[in-house]
Amino acid sequence: MSLAEFSLIERIRTRTRARADVVLGIGDDAALLQPRAGEQLVVTADTLNSGVHFPAETPPYDIGWKTLAVNLSDLASMGARPAWCVLALSLPDADPEWVDAFADGFFALADAHDIVLIGGDTTRGPLSLSVTAMGQVAPGTALRRDGARVGDDVWVSGTLGDAAVALRAWQGGTLDVRRTSDDAQVDFLRQRLARPTPRVALGCALAGVAHAAVDISDGLLADLGHICERSGVGAELDPERLPVSPAARARVGQSHAREAALRGGDDYELCFTAAPAQRTAIDALATRLALPLTRIGEIVPGHAVSTGSDATGPRGYEHFTEL
Amino acid sequence: MSLAEFSLIERIRTRTRARADVVLGIGDDAALLQPRAGEQLVVTADTLNSGVHFPAETPPYDIGWKTLAVNLSDLASMGARPAWCVLALSLPDADPEWVDAFADGFFALADAHDIVLIGGDTTRGPLSLSVTAMGQVAPGTALRRDGARVGDDVWVSGTLGDAAVALRAWQGGTLDVRRTSDDAQVDFLRQRLARPTPRVALGCALAGVAHAAVDISDGLLADLGHICERSGVGAELDPERLPVSPAARARVGQSHAREAALRGGDDYELCFTAAPAQRTAIDALATRLALPLTRIGEIVPGHAVSTGSDATGPRGYEHFTEL
Repeated sequence: MSLAEFSLIERIRTRTRARADVVLGIGDDAALLQPRAGEQLVVTADTLNSGVHFPAETPPYDIGWKTLAVNLSDLASMGARPAWCVLALSLPDADPEWVDAFADGFFALADAHDIVLIGGDTTRGPLSLSVTAMGQVAPGTALRRDGARVGDDVWVSGTLGDAAVALRAWQGGTLDVRRTSDDAQVDFLRQRLARPTPRVALGCALAGVAHAAVDISDGLLADLGHICERSGVGAELDPERLPVSPAARARVGQSHAREAALRGGDDYELCFTAAPAQRTAIDALATRLALPLTRIGEIVPGHAVSTGSDATGPRGYEHFTEL
Repeated sequence: MSLAEFSLIERIRTRTRARADVVLGIGDDAALLQPRAGEQLVVTADTLNSGVHFPAETPPYDIGWKTLAVNLSDLASMGARPAWCVLALSLPDADPEWVDAFADGFFALADAHDIVLIGGDTTRGPLSLSVTAMGQVAPGTALRRDGARVGDDVWVSGTLGDAAVALRAWQGGTLDVRRTSDDAQVDFLRQRLARPTPRVALGCALAGVAHAAVDISDGLLADLGHICERSGVGAELDPERLPVSPAARARVGQSHAREAALRGGDDYELCFTAAPAQRTAIDALATRLALPLTRIGEIVPGHAVSTGSDATGPRGYEHFTEL
């Protein structure tokens, strides 16, 4: 460990908050934790690479935010309460200002969700950020991909396609990811791409209520396809019901906005299935969380996601690459 | 997720073994685990970058082995039984042969220690490997850096300095990390650098017995220095007692071998402190594990590691860089 590396770790370590179940945090060979008795542990890991998962010019605050957000989103999609995380940070150079701004974004989101950093390391190399996030859930209540049942409603949270519309605008030179915009709609789209909101409270509320859930990182068709594949069912979507934002619609028109909602990735909304008997409870949840929850279709016998059209083109979403 | 990425994950996923406490492994948004009731969780994360933590020409089998070994070593130094791990793999290209050989090395070690892969991801980028490893330990028995007491013996396992001697030989062009050597001593040194043995059984046996422990990744002086710093004590070492291997001695002579034992990193032996009353038990443990355990000094009042000489030069060890 070089002195530069040591000092970077220190800069990050001092930002971590305490949590009663952390017996020993950063500073030993490993962290020591006391999980809640009887609960199950939920563990996820996601890596973001510069130029692959975010534009290289993304501000460090947003990189810090998004690095944690995509992992919190995976915990949310399992219905888990966030608890602890570790961070492996590969940096091209030891720039304290960059690290401080990165930490500002990372810990703003961490503190909001009471997840604490308990370890990790810093190495020199091309900018890359790997997080392993851990959460807890009561046995039998985790939201899995394999629990969807024929007759379930298919729901999504928030609006879809915003990140894809923002990404295309950035690629076309009409959206600057580096700074806020005076145009409120442009700024909304930029935030959706650069600082996605993990639906943690929603996921926790759905644990034991929904039958299956997934977070939308690869695009609705692809991610709902994962639920269908693992559950041995099909899904019929009504594209007319897809929730698209006024900003996306204004930017690319209704038709393209719907396409983005179907195929665009990086929104980090939740797609879940639940029995029709849960409709009232889910509508009440939407009100309580001030978050739109929209029924967009149903689970049917079969194995594919159908939209009623004969849409062609790639089903999945591949993270853009600048190369 | 691209098709190439998907297929690589599949190649790795099919290699993972079952474990009774893994409720849901790779294939959902996150893994679901059932920790043993009442036990504490030990979590560590380490990243290896090509050209920084291992020579770029290192065979993929050895890279897979070492990637897991350094993390198992951290669990060992805490006295934890290994349980689960996640792997974030960044690869310059999707070469199935490389991935298979990497997996051969990774899972050879994983299976030997009953640690199972429960998640992770694969991204495109310069070769980099991040593992988060999790283990379990009975409350109050974890080996920490802050538990050393004045009067404790200082012990180390195995022999020290071999990896540093091997690294220097590789840098000097007299040791080939790519293949086994006909010279048994050269091959011993190569193995010590490329396929370190994490002292898992030793760590578990020391839980509740030793007062403090650390694994030697940065060099004995630096790592024992961590124990002293965290415990508020000093240490006096007798360099004459440092265990060096016949291979290291033959290669660089007794004096340089001792220097390597003091300052060389990457050995992944354990350094621990224990009350003198434990000497008989620890000697018996050495016999049972067929692993030399050597008393090399004692814990004293103070705050520094002393070797009785006025050695100069850097105390710590910085991972070599090819740049």
